Amino acid sequence: MSGYRGRAQRILNAASVKVGDRIKVEDAGRSYEGVLMPRTELGDPNHLVIKLPSGYNLGVKIGTSTKIRLLERGKPPKLSVPKLELKPDPSKPNVTIIGTGGTIASRVDYRTGAVFPAFTPEEIYSAVPELAELANVKVVEACNVFSEHMTPELWVKIGRAIAKEINGGASGVVVAHGTDTMGYTAAALSFMLKGLHRPVVLVGSQRSSDRPSSDAALNLISAVTVAGKSNIAEVCVVMHGSAEDDFCLIHRGTKVRKCHTSRRDTFMSINDIPIGKVSKRDVKLFRDDYKHASSKGKVEVDVKFEPKVALLKVTPGMPSSVIEGMLRAGDKGIVLEGTGLGHVPESLFNGIKRAVAKGVPVVMTSQCLWGRVDMKVYSTGRDLLQLGVIPGEDMLPETAYVKLMWVLAHAKGIEEVSKLMRTNLAGEITPRTRPDVFLKPVFTPNP
Amino acid sequence: MSGYRGRAQRILNAASVKVGDRIKVEDAGRSYEGVLMPRTELGDPNHLVIKLPSGYNLGVKIGTSTKIRLLERGKPPKLSVPKLELKPDPSKPNVTIIGTGGTIASRVDYRTGAVFPAFTPEEIYSAVPELAELANVKVVEACNVFSEHMTPELWVKIGRAIAKEINGGASGVVVAHGTDTMGYTAAALSFMLKGLHRPVVLVGSQRSSDRPSSDAALNLISAVTVAGKSNIAEVCVVMHGSAEDDFCLIHRGTKVRKCHTSRRDTFMSINDIPIGKVSKRDVKLFRDDYKHASSKGKVEVDVKFEPKVALLKVTPGMPSSVIEGMLRAGDKGIVLEGTGLGHVPESLFNGIKRAVAKGVPVVMTSQCLWGRVDMKVYSTGRDLLQLGVIPGEDMLPETAYVKLMWVLAHAKGIEEVSKLMRTNLAGEITPRTRPDVFLKPVFTPNP
Repeated sequence: MSGYRGRAQRILNAASVKVGDRIKVEDAGRSYEGVLMPRTELGDPNHLVIKLPSGYNLGVKIGTSTKIRLLERGKPPKLSVPKLELKPDPSKPNVTIIGTGGTIASRVDYRTGAVFPAFTPEEIYSAVPELAELANVKVVEACNVFSEHMTPELWVKIGRAIAKEINGGASGVVVAHGTDTMGYTAAALSFMLKGLHRPVVLVGSQRSSDRPSSDAALNLISAVTVAGKSNIAEVCVVMHGSAEDDFCLIHRGTKVRKCHTSRRDTFMSINDIPIGKVSKRDVKLFRDDYKHASSKGKVEVDVKFEPKVALLKVTPGMPSSVIEGMLRAGDKGIVLEGTGLGHVPESLFNGIKRAVAKGVPVVMTSQCLWGRVDMKVYSTGRDLLQLGVIPGEDMLPETAYVKLMWVLAHAKGIEEVSKLMRTNLAGEITPRTRPDVFLKPVFTPNP
Repeated sequence: MSGYRGRAQRILNAASVKVGDRIKVEDAGRSYEGVLMPRTELGDPNHLVIKLPSGYNLGVKIGTSTKIRLLERGKPPKLSVPKLELKPDPSKPNVTIIGTGGTIASRVDYRTGAVFPAFTPEEIYSAVPELAELANVKVVEACNVFSEHMTPELWVKIGRAIAKEINGGASGVVVAHGTDTMGYTAAALSFMLKGLHRPVVLVGSQRSSDRPSSDAALNLISAVTVAGKSNIAEVCVVMHGSAEDDFCLIHRGTKVRKCHTSRRDTFMSINDIPIGKVSKRDVKLFRDDYKHASSKGKVEVDVKFEPKVALLKVTPGMPSSVIEGMLRAGDKGIVLEGTGLGHVPESLFNGIKRAVAKGVPVVMTSQCLWGRVDMKVYSTGRDLLQLGVIPGEDMLPETAYVKLMWVLAHAKGIEEVSKLMRTNLAGEITPRTRPDVFLKPVFTPNP
């Protein structure tokens, strides 16, 4: 139940240390004291988690020279896992939760603050008992990394795991994913999954699930609700819709972005409204223009991505040598995060010319994030169109970057790249931006 | 009154073409037809502006092979500029408007849609008569570029022009600046102007001032109000606070960002509340923790910037070779736009190690934009701190980038760089983020 395995398990066993003990960890001159916590990620073998006196959990990487010393024997809480009747209920949907390394669920002993990671369906039901009312849950693991270490290769592993579950009869799939790069993965899966006829829902949590303010339970319940009960046959992200623990929003996978380092309502639909919301296990849709689910179909995983694509945020006076360096490094496509309506300094024009001459497509997005690239308004935009820059419409820069990786692996020649980049493939381009998709500050001064 | 000079004036004279005429412009295979408009930017000699049949104004660059042909003689409107009494009114503040290439003001003939650019105080008063009630306005030109072409060298020219005006007795200065890179320039001026004791206000417009929806007049009136009447001795940005034409917000120069490609309320204070608002020529302050103006003082312009700094937005699986390329190119500092609380993929660790070993500081910010870097929560952050990465607190990536350029030119050694980057110098770091500085969507679904 500690969640440790591999190297971590060995070093803990050697020091006769158990979850709940107060320990000292020393390595390369650093040392930390705290209470050994159970792992909330699925079995990463190279990290310990200790709760510092400040209350924060700290992940400590275990190296070959790491030393662990027992300071005080803890009294690990005893929680009885209620034995649940887990034979599938045919009246409920079958939902598979695919683990990727993000926190899925955990059960907190409130006296000690210790956390029990939940790996098996029994444990997940026990941590979030509401799930048993919603679905027959199955848990599989596709990979096991913090989301900042997610890679295009792992996108493919996740995509294959999703297709296997859906083609195997799952009503829907929930992908538990760290929040850092969830938007990139959601975009990648959106382009990758062909013929998707069931919901695919990415979910994560912004607060470690052993903290009272955790958003994990509501997010997980809402994600399983969308995966099991909705008819949205798209890749979406389901996360808190407000700072309260009251509802989640359903964001389209190609239009969503993490916009705050720590808030629970960090994910926002950009340049489009969300598909709907989940409140009290009820899905309310804001619109009908999503792909509707069907009971029959076969998902195919189109896994080709060209990894050598660069996303370049443009800064004042940026020299062409930056782009020339990318070309030398073998980049096959460049997404610019330009200024305003889609501009760059004249000092970049030569670099762009050279890229286009080499057959390396250059796509324009805006670092404003909100709004739409329009390169016909000012002469700088006209000049860039003339150089062959492909306007990215209202695509998020991150989505355009993932899309260009996918398009480059599928298009024959730069003309087709240009056409596909300007064609809406998976909800990433909206033909016309709604006037109400911008944001207003939470802060409102007294009048 | 046409606003054309230099090459533009010569080619127009040679074709016997006047403002209001319908013309055809041909160059390198491209051709445009439309009505020749007067220039609304201050005398850029290399562009013509024509109004296309769509109603959009198009700036056309004049090359050596550009040909102009008269299609139809226009009837330029005759507007009499009312002669104003322009001897300084000693009861009013003296405000200098410094032009940089952005639209300052213009006067529209509503019958034809033709625009009269306003260069002289008479013309500006005539375009926005309210200004005469607010201040004795003087107009000078620091440079003349679209803001996407702004460079660190031009920041210095603008800074020097500001200091000259304030040290010469101006109550305040308004800098008319294109919106694309206004945030970068505002940050640069914030670090550059030492001993600032009068308001410095950047202002621009999102809509070409010949369009009925232009925000230019309200922005300009509000900016002159802040420059002339407020006691905010800081660099700030004054732009529309809502989509209506009702009020402007006063943003701190180091905390402001353009967040929408086209909306009038595009500028937002990030991770802090605005300093105040301007509505009906009245300044209302939201807070008192700004630098208060004084009637005496001397501004110094500390112009040293290290231009070889890179801003790197991190993407999944990004390889260390990207950073190695920057080091080879001679970059002296790197600002990372990491994920979440300040993370990067492990694949970048080696590159970061090499940068630090070479004495190239690496500063962490977050591509979330909102929130605060906290690298002590997860092991990836701890690892990066261990590698020597400098946490950028709640600084905007763009501001951290400009600040690192300034700090590198002033600090002796990497220890001082690290200390200065973590020290609040010009309002760029707030000690604690207010809970109400995030955003909520304008879209609100029916309940």
